[in-house]
Amino acid sequence: MALPDSIQNLIAQFNKLPGIGQKTAERFVFYLLKQPKSEIDEFVKSLNGLKNNIKICSECFDFSETSPCSICRNSQRDKSIICAVAQGPDVIALEKTSEYNGVYHVLNGLINQIEGIGPEKLRVKELINRLKKNGVKEVILALDATMEGETTAMYLIKEIKPLNIKITRLARGLPMGSDIEYADEITLSSALKGRREI
Amino acid sequence: MALPDSIQNLIAQFNKLPGIGQKTAERFVFYLLKQPKSEIDEFVKSLNGLKNNIKICSECFDFSETSPCSICRNSQRDKSIICAVAQGPDVIALEKTSEYNGVYHVLNGLINQIEGIGPEKLRVKELINRLKKNGVKEVILALDATMEGETTAMYLIKEIKPLNIKITRLARGLPMGSDIEYADEITLSSALKGRREI
Repeated sequence: MALPDSIQNLIAQFNKLPGIGQKTAERFVFYLLKQPKSEIDEFVKSLNGLKNNIKICSECFDFSETSPCSICRNSQRDKSIICAVAQGPDVIALEKTSEYNGVYHVLNGLINQIEGIGPEKLRVKELINRLKKNGVKEVILALDATMEGETTAMYLIKEIKPLNIKITRLARGLPMGSDIEYADEITLSSALKGRREI
Repeated sequence: MALPDSIQNLIAQFNKLPGIGQKTAERFVFYLLKQPKSEIDEFVKSLNGLKNNIKICSECFDFSETSPCSICRNSQRDKSIICAVAQGPDVIALEKTSEYNGVYHVLNGLINQIEGIGPEKLRVKELINRLKKNGVKEVILALDATMEGETTAMYLIKEIKPLNIKITRLARGLPMGSDIEYADEITLSSALKGRREI
């Protein structure tokens, strides 16, 4: 027996979401079938809200309902420090620390030669323009500690160097809750190199 | 920083799906934000399709776009055998075996005293009515091999017994690919009791 088309179509949609296979997608649909129809209306409303209300901030290129976004509009934030990140969720993660009072720049990805993402696909030009225009004193590279993050950082450093702006990057070391015994050599050697006097 | 409302609303919707936490819901939303807007339209269309097109079959109570459903309408299916299942996905699982040519009856759950699901919340009365009306020869109880499945089976057997209809249930035994060494005692004892001559 083939499933009814309306069920199959929605399974196919859920199936496209990252990490969701056929079986989990089926579970979602049968869960929704058991809910009151108003639940599906809510879902549709939220999806349309996302589609219609979310813009890209003209300054930092993060997702926002306004442009400029709430961070870029905030006069309390220090516009002389720009933190370059790969994507929106990274901004959220950094904001959760409450340790940063500068502004952001969302690059929209990391350089990944295998997937054909070269620097021209990222918002590097826009970053350089921001650095040239404003009185920016520091650029923080807050990029993943991966091959792609490293490659992107190297590229950005090369591009920003001529502007004579301070470039910093997030510290490498032992993550909270980790055992030295099980730490990999690269992490441990970063932690050693970056050791601090108490 | 609080996330934009439109993003938070959709995260909340995904968060309601079974097994989906805050973090995964966020991933889904940021995935959708990266897709062309037509992708969100597709999603909305599928959700509305589910809401508007899916009915409950008047005979077997399975989800379907037509009532009666394609199985109940199929004149090739043997109407004298009814297979009672807890829910729609069980029908799909059984249909995939291509071993069954009768019809189904979806009970809409299993008896679960802890969650307050008594037999009156299941479609037991509807099953008894079907058994009384048609020339039904056999009822197959295809219920989960769990406490809830057992309880429901016991209850159904008690209700159906007076009608003098053959009642059968799915065999218990070793599942395909399992090791005897690691089989639990209940499974192994079922496999022993149900052993077959070759």
